[in-house]
Amino acid sequence: MAPPSSDDDLSIFPATARRLNGHLWLGGLDLVDLAREYGTPLHIFDEATLVDAMRSFRQAFATRYPSVLLAYAAKAFINPWLARLLAREGLGMDVVSAGEMAVAHDAGFPMERVHLHGNNKLQAELEMALELGVGRVVIDNAGEIGQLNQLASARGLVAPVLLRVAPGVEAHTHQYLQTGGHYSKFGIPLQGEQASRAVREIVASSSLRLVGYHAHIGSQIFDLLPYRDNVARLVEFAADMRQQCGVEPLELSPGGGWGIQHTPEEDPPSVEDVAIAITNALQRAASAHGLPLPRLILEPGRSIVGRAGVTLYTVGSIKDVPGFGTYAAVDGGMADNIRPALYQASYTAMVANRVDEEATATQTIAGKYCETGDILIPRARLPRLRTGDLLAVPATGAYAIPMASNYNLALKPAIVAVLDGRAVLVRRRQTYADLVACEVR
Amino acid sequence: MAPPSSDDDLSIFPATARRLNGHLWLGGLDLVDLAREYGTPLHIFDEATLVDAMRSFRQAFATRYPSVLLAYAAKAFINPWLARLLAREGLGMDVVSAGEMAVAHDAGFPMERVHLHGNNKLQAELEMALELGVGRVVIDNAGEIGQLNQLASARGLVAPVLLRVAPGVEAHTHQYLQTGGHYSKFGIPLQGEQASRAVREIVASSSLRLVGYHAHIGSQIFDLLPYRDNVARLVEFAADMRQQCGVEPLELSPGGGWGIQHTPEEDPPSVEDVAIAITNALQRAASAHGLPLPRLILEPGRSIVGRAGVTLYTVGSIKDVPGFGTYAAVDGGMADNIRPALYQASYTAMVANRVDEEATATQTIAGKYCETGDILIPRARLPRLRTGDLLAVPATGAYAIPMASNYNLALKPAIVAVLDGRAVLVRRRQTYADLVACEVR
Repeated sequence: MAPPSSDDDLSIFPATARRLNGHLWLGGLDLVDLAREYGTPLHIFDEATLVDAMRSFRQAFATRYPSVLLAYAAKAFINPWLARLLAREGLGMDVVSAGEMAVAHDAGFPMERVHLHGNNKLQAELEMALELGVGRVVIDNAGEIGQLNQLASARGLVAPVLLRVAPGVEAHTHQYLQTGGHYSKFGIPLQGEQASRAVREIVASSSLRLVGYHAHIGSQIFDLLPYRDNVARLVEFAADMRQQCGVEPLELSPGGGWGIQHTPEEDPPSVEDVAIAITNALQRAASAHGLPLPRLILEPGRSIVGRAGVTLYTVGSIKDVPGFGTYAAVDGGMADNIRPALYQASYTAMVANRVDEEATATQTIAGKYCETGDILIPRARLPRLRTGDLLAVPATGAYAIPMASNYNLALKPAIVAVLDGRAVLVRRRQTYADLVACEVR
Repeated sequence: MAPPSSDDDLSIFPATARRLNGHLWLGGLDLVDLAREYGTPLHIFDEATLVDAMRSFRQAFATRYPSVLLAYAAKAFINPWLARLLAREGLGMDVVSAGEMAVAHDAGFPMERVHLHGNNKLQAELEMALELGVGRVVIDNAGEIGQLNQLASARGLVAPVLLRVAPGVEAHTHQYLQTGGHYSKFGIPLQGEQASRAVREIVASSSLRLVGYHAHIGSQIFDLLPYRDNVARLVEFAADMRQQCGVEPLELSPGGGWGIQHTPEEDPPSVEDVAIAITNALQRAASAHGLPLPRLILEPGRSIVGRAGVTLYTVGSIKDVPGFGTYAAVDGGMADNIRPALYQASYTAMVANRVDEEATATQTIAGKYCETGDILIPRARLPRLRTGDLLAVPATGAYAIPMASNYNLALKPAIVAVLDGRAVLVRRRQTYADLVACEVR
C-alpha cells in the first residue's frame, strides 16, 4: 500500500502542519522538539488555525447578513489565553457556569458579549450574571423567569434575556449530542402552550426584557437541513409571538454544533455552506412573516477550536496478540480524551518523528489507563510503531481538554500554543501537589 | 402504588442508613444538616460500612484459606484518608500510576503491601516503584522484563514480580470492563508461547524474582463461573511453568471485579459466595496439579468502597415536557459521575428531606451539564420533586469520584466521612482558584 499523499494526510491537521526532515511541524516548530521541551501527553494549539477559524466564520456570515454576533461556546474549551484571543478577535462567548463566567471576566472579556446558558442555572450563577453584566441570560425553563426577575428587581436592573425553546428538530448525531428534539432536557417545547406562556410571563416581568429566542439542535452535525428547519421554526414562533404578545424579536440564535473532521472520511459542510444555509433560511423566513431581520447569534464551539488542536503522545509498550494484532500503548488515553470511550469518536494519528515512512501496519492505539475501554484508535494504519515514537492525534481541540479527568490519579497535560516559530506555555502540566491540593490531612 | 418497605429501600444504601424525622440519616447524621454545612453536590462515605466491607472480605477468605493478601484496587477511589484506613485495617493496595503510589507513600502506607499494575508503565513509574520499595511489580508485557531488570540491576536490587497473563476468560459485563479475554490490552496471552517465553526470560533475569502470576477478568461481574475458570487456568499455567522452568508459584492473584448493587434489581454474589468459589477452585486445582497452596492475592475495588458512598444533590429546575414526562435537574451530573453516560450505569435515588413520602411520580433526573447525555437516572420513581429537595444517590463510592472532570468548568465536590454521629471533611470542594491553578497568565 502506497503512503497517502502529503496533502490528504495533513488535511485534518492545523493549517500550518508540515513535513520537514522526517518530522511533523506545527506553527513553524518541530513537534519532536516540543515533546522534548514540554513532555507528553501534550496538547498543542496552532494559533494561526484558531484565529483563521474565528475570522472565516465571522466573514462568511458578515458578507451575507447585516448583523451577526459570533458567541463562541466555551464548553468546547476555554482558558484565560483563549478568552483573551476571542476578545481580541471581537467574538462573543456562550458560557454555562460560574466557572466559565469567571474565566471570561478575569480575562477582561467584554461581559456584554457573554451569554449565560444552562438547563439548571444555580441561583449563585444568575446573581453572578447580573453582577458581572452578562449580556444575555438565556432562559431555559419557566422557573427561571420569576427567579431572575426577582433577582434583577432586587438589584434595580432590567435583565435582557433570550428564551430557549426546544424546536422539535432531530439532528443526525450521537444521541448524547442531540439537543433539539421535543423531549430534550433543554428549553421549553415549541409544541403545546408552554412556550407562549413563558413569553407572556417574561413580557409581564418588569425586570426582564425579552430580546429574542434561541434553539440549539446538537453538536457534531454534518447535515444542514435540520439547521434550516430550526431557523424556520424559530422565525415562525417569533412571528407568532409578535402577533400574540406584541414582542419584537430583535435577536435570534439557532445555536451552533457544526461538525468538524476528526478523520479524513468525515465530510462536514464548509463554513460558507453553513453561512449560506442559515442566512438564506433566516432571510426567507423573516420575509415570509414580514419580520425585520433580527440580529443573528451563532454559537460555534468545536468548529472554532477543533482543528487547531493536536495531542502528542509517546508510545510505550507494544504487544503482539496472536489472532488479534498489535497494541501500541501511549502515555495518555481516556483521562485526557474520553471521547472515544464516551461517544465512540474516531481519531487518526501520525508518527510525528517519522512522517515520511510508509504506513505498513495496522495497530490498535491503547491508552495507559486500567480499563479495556481505554482505546484511543482501534485500528490505525501507520508505520510499525516503536517504543519512544511520538504519536500526533489531530482534531483534538474541542471537548477533550474540558472533559479530562484525573482517573488513575493521572496529571492533566500541559497546553502549548504555537505561532510563527514560537511556543507559549498557556497551561502548565499538573503536578502531584495539584492532585492532592484539596485533600484534608 | 404503596411506598416500598423501609428495608428494601435502604438495602443498597450504607448499613447505617436510617429514616428519622422524615429525613435520611447516615452514620448518625441527618443528610439535610450535612447538605447545609458542606453544600452540594457532596460525596459522603459511611466509614462503618467501609470498614465492615474490608473486614468481611478479609474474614470470608481468611477462614477458608491459609494465606491471603487483600490488595485494594486504588483506581476505584483513593485519597490520603482512605489510604490510612486501608493501612490500619491491614489491607494491601493495587496501584496503577505514580500518583497512586505517591498517595500511598505519603499516607505512610506499608509499601511492601503495594502492587504496581499497568499495561504501559512509564519508566519513571518503574523507577519510583523500585525506589519506594513497592512489594510487587506486576509485569504486563515482554518489554517490561528487560526494562525493569535493568533498572533494578542499576540500583543493586532484586525486584519481586508477578506476571500478568490474559487467561482467555470472557466475563459477562460492559465491554469496556472485560479485561480477561484473549485479545485484551492487558497481560500476556496464555494461548501460544508468549507467556512461557516471558517466564523463561524473567527467570533468566538476575535482578528479577518471579513470585507468581496474575489474571484479572474484569469489573462489575456477577457470575462466579468465570472466576473459577480463571483460577483453574492460572493454576494450570503455574504448574506447567514449574515443570518447564522449575519456578515455584508462591503467589497467585485472580484479580478482583466483584459486582455490587447499584439498584435493588441487581443481584451480585455475597462475599461468602465469592470466597467459597475462589478458594475451592484454587484448592481443587492446586491439589490436582500437586502444587503447594500459593498465597492468594485478591484485588477488590468497587466491592470495598462502592456501597459506602452516597452522593447528595440539590434539585433545581423542574420541567414538564408534554409526551415525555418530567425532568428534575440536580446541581451535578456527568462531571461528578460519568458512569451513566459512559457505561449506561443505573442508579436509584431517595429524597433525603422527605423519606416518608410516597413515590407517586416517575421523573427523569437530569444533570446540569450542557449535554443531552447528562442524565443521571432516566426514570426514577419518587415523590414529586420540588426545587430545593435533596436527592441522595446510593452506591456511588466506586469510580464516580476518580473519573470526575471539570467539564463546563464545574468544581469537583467535597468528600465527607461520617462515623458515629461525627462528620469529617476529608476532601474540600474545589474553588475557582483550583480550577485555574495551572493557567499561565
